This record gives sequence, structure tokens and C-alpha cells, in this order.
Amino acid sequence: MRWLKFTADGKTSWGVVEGDRVVAVDGDPFSDHKRIARSHALNDVKIELPLVPRTFYCVGLNYLKHLKEAADRRGEVPAVPDRPEVGYRAQNALIAHDEDVVIPASATEKIHYEGELVVVIGKTAKHLTPANAMDCVFGYTIGNDVSERTWQKADRGLWRSKNADTFKPMGPWIETSADLASMETIIRVNGKETYRFRTNDMIFGVVSFLVEMSKYFTLWPGDVVWMGTDGTSPDLKHGDVVEIEITGIGVLRNRFVREKA
Amino acid sequence: MRWLKFTADGKTSWGVVEGDRVVAVDGDPFSDHKRIARSHALNDVKIELPLVPRTFYCVGLNYLKHLKEAADRRGEVPAVPDRPEVGYRAQNALIAHDEDVVIPASATEKIHYEGELVVVIGKTAKHLTPANAMDCVFGYTIGNDVSERTWQKADRGLWRSKNADTFKPMGPWIETSADLASMETIIRVNGKETYRFRTNDMIFGVVSFLVEMSKYFTLWPGDVVWMGTDGTSPDLKHGDVVEIEITGIGVLRNRFVREKA
Repeated sequence: MRWLKFTADGKTSWGVVEGDRVVAVDGDPFSDHKRIARSHALNDVKIELPLVPRTFYCVGLNYLKHLKEAADRRGEVPAVPDRPEVGYRAQNALIAHDEDVVIPASATEKIHYEGELVVVIGKTAKHLTPANAMDCVFGYTIGNDVSERTWQKADRGLWRSKNADTFKPMGPWIETSADLASMETIIRVNGKETYRFRTNDMIFGVVSFLVEMSKYFTLWPGDVVWMGTDGTSPDLKHGDVVEIEITGIGVLRNRFVREKA
Repeated sequence: MRWLKFTADGKTSWGVVEGDRVVAVDGDPFSDHKRIARSHALNDVKIELPLVPRTFYCVGLNYLKHLKEAADRRGEVPAVPDRPEVGYRAQNALIAHDEDVVIPASATEKIHYEGELVVVIGKTAKHLTPANAMDCVFGYTIGNDVSERTWQKADRGLWRSKNADTFKPMGPWIETSADLASMETIIRVNGKETYRFRTNDMIFGVVSFLVEMSKYFTLWPGDVVWMGTDGTSPDLKHGDVVEIEITGIGVLRNRFVREKA
């Protein structure tokens, strides 16, 4: 099932995508809800950010090629993580599908995409085991962990480099049934494929992260865990349109524009 | 004015503290609200977490003595920050005044308090200037940035060391009028004073942080910025009660208990 947050006729609500239409739902996917008679053509609605997570988790280094690239940038030998350690991103930076990523006027030209699988938590959970960890997963969406690489070298805690306003596009919807093993992540800039990787080729997978995180953290419905990215990105410039496709979920598309100084 | 979130007779609402009573308010301090006739003795109500921020900002190193202690722990020479850089904490870790900090069974004995001034944002703001930065401040509360120092050395991005469940007590209420220059932060363990510092003796003050952060981030009503701490903490053990007092605001009190293995 494909859950979409959308606005039509001035009204924002959840809905379920069926083919090229969205059927409105009263309530939300994490609690009581029921389908209502209203439906719209997908093309006629504004796609909204699916949710603002209570806690916004994000895995830093979880794919081998990306790890090597990050180490090269720092002039270091890549060190493969020996345990699943999670990080955080800032809610202020979230935007929806088709909204613009605004590159701050003071940013350098080293603006990169990172296409990521996003795990959406559906149930309150702590002390998960490998056997039951997936029970707390509601579904999956797509994230673009936009990064300013010059700031990333200089910033303590990645504060600006990863979290400037609009740097965290997420969407377009939440897909509840997905076969991780068969998924591919495909990234296109201005319609041209720039990178492709097997989505589940992670150093530590979804189960490992949920088990480790939930030793210390209570996961809440609507929390998200961005699972990291593989490979590299060209420097993105004003007007570029980036699409992150994850097969079985959909396509997250955003234009990049540079803020006027 | 002193805004308190509280529960009485099974009902949770905002209220205004007047002497030893709280007068209930319909609505919330960030939007429409009005006082209602209901009031309670402060002693009779359960004090709740004032809010869950949309984005949870926290300054790492902002006082000279604490900076030196942190550097000593790493066996390094202290480097004084040359610009106001902010970090993040996780919403899952927040608890209210008088709720217990639960030390995970797997934690070492290096459990420390950090008493911090918390700035509560009241208005949506971006690109603040030194002249108007304080206009977006709604008020102040108190935070205890509980830290597991052994994990802090080992963790990437402080993920467990600062953000395990219950590691972020905040409260007891939000005070809207405060004279930063005259405030003192006083920390007591089991009633005995262990540290005291001038709250505003920051390397970078509230205005500097708000101006720098809002170059990149939109601040939202209910966002919080924890301003860092000074000095050191003894190792806290099962049963210890920590009070963080900030003169002009109040006292945040929490007991520390160790989770059974």
C-alpha cells in the first residue's frame, strides 16, 4: 500500500495511491483511519512531506564505495565501521517531492546528492530482536541527504553541511510492502543516470540498525531512519533536477536552485 | 511569566504559575490561548515536559572550564571554538522534571550531568541580526545534558552517549522574563552543591548563536537551543538526585537509577 500526504482543493490529508489516482483517507496511517469517497488524479494534487519525524535518525557511512569516497576526501584510509552507529539530522531541513533545494548564497559549488532508503517506524518499540525488528517498520520512502562538502570538512557535527534549510528532501510517499533484496537505487541528474547501486548492499542492514538503536532508544511511530548512500555525486548547480529512484517505491525529484546573494 | 505544562485530574494542559499555584490555560503559549477559571496547588500537579521541539539544537563546547575538561579527557590541548557551531540531540531522550534518568544496564559508571540554559524559540525566524535576534526568543528553561563519558569517547556522533532514553531532562517550566547577565547556574547532588557558574559566561552568547544558526536554518516556535555547560561532574550513581538551578528560572530535579541487567 502506498500512503501519500497531499493537498487538493486547499485541503491537506493522507491518501492511498491506486494507479494514477489518490483516494483520500480520514485520519492517519499510524492510528485510526478510513477511506472516504473523495479521490483525485495524482497529477492534480500537491505532494506534501509525508511527515515530520519526532526523532530524525540518519546513518552516515553504510556502503563501501561511499565510505571510500568520504575517506579519500579527508586524505585517509577508509575504516569500515565495526558496528551500526546512527546519527541525526535536523527537521528544519525537510522538504517534499518537487519542492526546490535552495543552495545558500554562501555555499561553495561542492553540493552533492545522496540517495537513501528511508525506513519509517510504525510502532513504539524498544529492545528489538533480530526476529521481531521488522515488526516495527511501517514502510519505506526515499531521502536525498544533500551535502555541502566544503562545509562538511569544516563543520563540527555536520551542522550546516547536512542540515541547512531544504537540504533534506523526503518522499514522495510511503510504500508499505517492499522487497529490500531486489531493490535498486538509481540516481539521475537532468534525466541522465549518474549512479546505480543495490539498495540493500549495506554494511549493516535495517535489522542490525533497529536492534542496536533500540537497545538505547525508544522508537516512535513516524520516526525515520535514513540508511545511507553509496557512490559519488557530481557537483550540482543552479537548475539541476535530481531524481532518486528506488525500485518498488518510486521517484523523489527535486530541483536545485542557488539563493541570490 | 512562567508557563507550565501539567497534568491534574487526568487532564494535561498548559498553565501559568503564580506563587505556589498554577492557573490553567486553554490553548498553548505559541498561539491563541486564554486563562480559564481552573487552578491547582503546584504541589498537587504532575509537571510534564514543556514540549517536544521540532528541531532539538544543542551547543557542545561553550564554556572555558568545560572545554578544558573535555580536552583533558581526550588527552588534547583545548582548542577554543572560533565560531558558534551548533549540534543536535534526540527527542526520544527527553523527560520531565522529577522523572527518573535511567542509566542503561550496559553503561559504565562515568555518568555525568551537564546543567544548561535552554532557549525556547517563540516565532518562525530566519536571517536574524544582532539587533532583532532576541525578538524570536519566547523564554528560557533548564536542561540536563546527561552524558556517558566512556561511550562519548567511542561513539560516532555522540549517538548513545548523549541521546539514550531519559538522558535529556528538561523543565520544570518556561520563564519568559529573564536577565541573562545576572543569572547563576548552581548544581547540587543529593542536596550538596557541586558546581556553580555564571550562566551567561559563554564563549558565544545567545545572540551570536541565533544569528549564526538562522543564516542556514529556519527557527520554529517550540524549537529549543541548549546553550552548553561549564565545569565538571562527579560520577553519578544509582539513587543520586541531581538538581540544576538557574536563578530567575527555577530548579530542574531528577533522580538517577540504574536499569537492571
